[in-house]
Amino acid sequence: MFIDALQYVAPSRKVFEQMRAGQLDLVHITVGYHEDFHGVLQNLSDWNKHLEANSDLIARATSVQDVRAANKAGRTAIMFGLQNPLAFSADLGRVELLVQAGIRFCQITYNQQSLLGAGCFETQDSGLTDFGRECVAEMNRVGMVIDLSHAGSQTAMDVAQVSNRPVAVTHANPHAWHPVPRNISDDLIQTVTSKGGMVGFSLYPHHLKDGSACSLATFATMAADCVTRFGNHFGIGSDLCQDQPDSVVNWMRNGHWRKTPVPAAVFPQQPDWFTDNRDFPGLASGLSHAGLTGQQVDGIMGNNWERFLESALEPA
Amino acid sequence: MFIDALQYVAPSRKVFEQMRAGQLDLVHITVGYHEDFHGVLQNLSDWNKHLEANSDLIARATSVQDVRAANKAGRTAIMFGLQNPLAFSADLGRVELLVQAGIRFCQITYNQQSLLGAGCFETQDSGLTDFGRECVAEMNRVGMVIDLSHAGSQTAMDVAQVSNRPVAVTHANPHAWHPVPRNISDDLIQTVTSKGGMVGFSLYPHHLKDGSACSLATFATMAADCVTRFGNHFGIGSDLCQDQPDSVVNWMRNGHWRKTPVPAAVFPQQPDWFTDNRDFPGLASGLSHAGLTGQQVDGIMGNNWERFLESALEPA
Repeated sequence: MFIDALQYVAPSRKVFEQMRAGQLDLVHITVGYHEDFHGVLQNLSDWNKHLEANSDLIARATSVQDVRAANKAGRTAIMFGLQNPLAFSADLGRVELLVQAGIRFCQITYNQQSLLGAGCFETQDSGLTDFGRECVAEMNRVGMVIDLSHAGSQTAMDVAQVSNRPVAVTHANPHAWHPVPRNISDDLIQTVTSKGGMVGFSLYPHHLKDGSACSLATFATMAADCVTRFGNHFGIGSDLCQDQPDSVVNWMRNGHWRKTPVPAAVFPQQPDWFTDNRDFPGLASGLSHAGLTGQQVDGIMGNNWERFLESALEPA
Repeated sequence: MFIDALQYVAPSRKVFEQMRAGQLDLVHITVGYHEDFHGVLQNLSDWNKHLEANSDLIARATSVQDVRAANKAGRTAIMFGLQNPLAFSADLGRVELLVQAGIRFCQITYNQQSLLGAGCFETQDSGLTDFGRECVAEMNRVGMVIDLSHAGSQTAMDVAQVSNRPVAVTHANPHAWHPVPRNISDDLIQTVTSKGGMVGFSLYPHHLKDGSACSLATFATMAADCVTRFGNHFGIGSDLCQDQPDSVVNWMRNGHWRKTPVPAAVFPQQPDWFTDNRDFPGLASGLSHAGLTGQQVDGIMGNNWERFLESALEPA
């Protein structure tokens, strides 16, 4: 099974055709960064139009059973998640309501302070908040995957330790390999994976050693090293933002929360070996040249996520 | 002028008649604890009905000029504020929008972590957040009074230091007089008042030495001591929750954010010298027996708030 545990592609028939060409079985799509509850529901409503208009290529999934049914019918399954718990507001009841609306993943925060915890770019990180503890327990109960991507290191570690079910970091690489705030410490990788959690390797250039010039071999060596050290708890979370205008990366960074935006950003150029979903088979091939067994490569390409999701998406 | 800088009375014609009987010129009414943006607008809409039906007794005010016009016409002015910035969500633009809707005060947080900072009952308090800094600057710009009541001590001190305009603690007493988390340190009182800010003495029993049994003389002695030590920067913020059912105090404490509510609470009995708005003149009389000058008593009863609000409600 090929699974990409994080994309924010601009939806289009072209992209969905590329998902099929790339043999993607499941793509986790972000439907919330700075949107509140109503904004998330609007995004889900917008996606329903794409799902209806492209029902020969993609199908909505909220479980692994849905994914398999979609695959059997020759469709790529689309599963939705949030990179920010802003849609929870301060209402614990929103967690289950959002699962019922189709949200299956949610980050603890997106870069800054949320009501649950601090982000990796927040000046102070005092860890998981009191409400955050309640949310972790509720996400555990209803089977919403807790995603530690973009969290601050103290907050992420608190959640990894407090959660009574395995958690995920859908899109990040080891900080030791490429030291940027968005990548994660070996300590966190150890804590997450030792409890049965997952880490999705990011293919976003800012998270890659050598950035856009990172070679597939360099990436594959890092991946193989992780599997050797921490076991079969890794997958792909490409963070692919295909066809999004640069206004989107500026919105991602500034949201509506600061007066003076950070200097204008542009989406970095993807490495030439991963520019869209059609590059998935090549990624598998690259991994197989880094000394991984066929089973290990299959694990990274999707089987590890499949195994994780099979239990993680079920209510406790 | 008689001003009460914090009430959460259940609105009724009886209460408005008592405001007139107590010679109240201005009452700041809370219209948001755990409500989001839409909830706050609904509360404002509900209050508009009370304002319309009781226009012979009360009048909406968003400025000191409005207060004076209401008083001249024999009405008690009602000004609205929030005890929680949840209505901001993560959108800085909501600050001005809420001012335009009539909100003139807003707390940094209510007891727990908000997107701006930590509350006095939050386990960890890492101070003002990055978004909080943006909000302080925006509240300064548009003339929304920053209220530090219910904030954690680090968060409150950060705001008092960072704000480029005087701030308020609308309803709290000195922690040294009655050491509970909701009361505030002498350091904070010093920082707030030395920059031209205000502290409103609370008459909520949990904030009073000896609770419901606190005597007017004990309260007045504390007030006089504050004026002696920190100057004419004190007023009243009674925190009167008259006619609210006990379900409300449980909602205040638990909101929708925790699964297991704290054990059922009841509203404490008010001290017999302050049970409703008709007790304001008696309060003035009590203060005058604690060694304060007539001018100092008038200051506490309303003139200090009037002076503060005259500039604080204006845009920068």
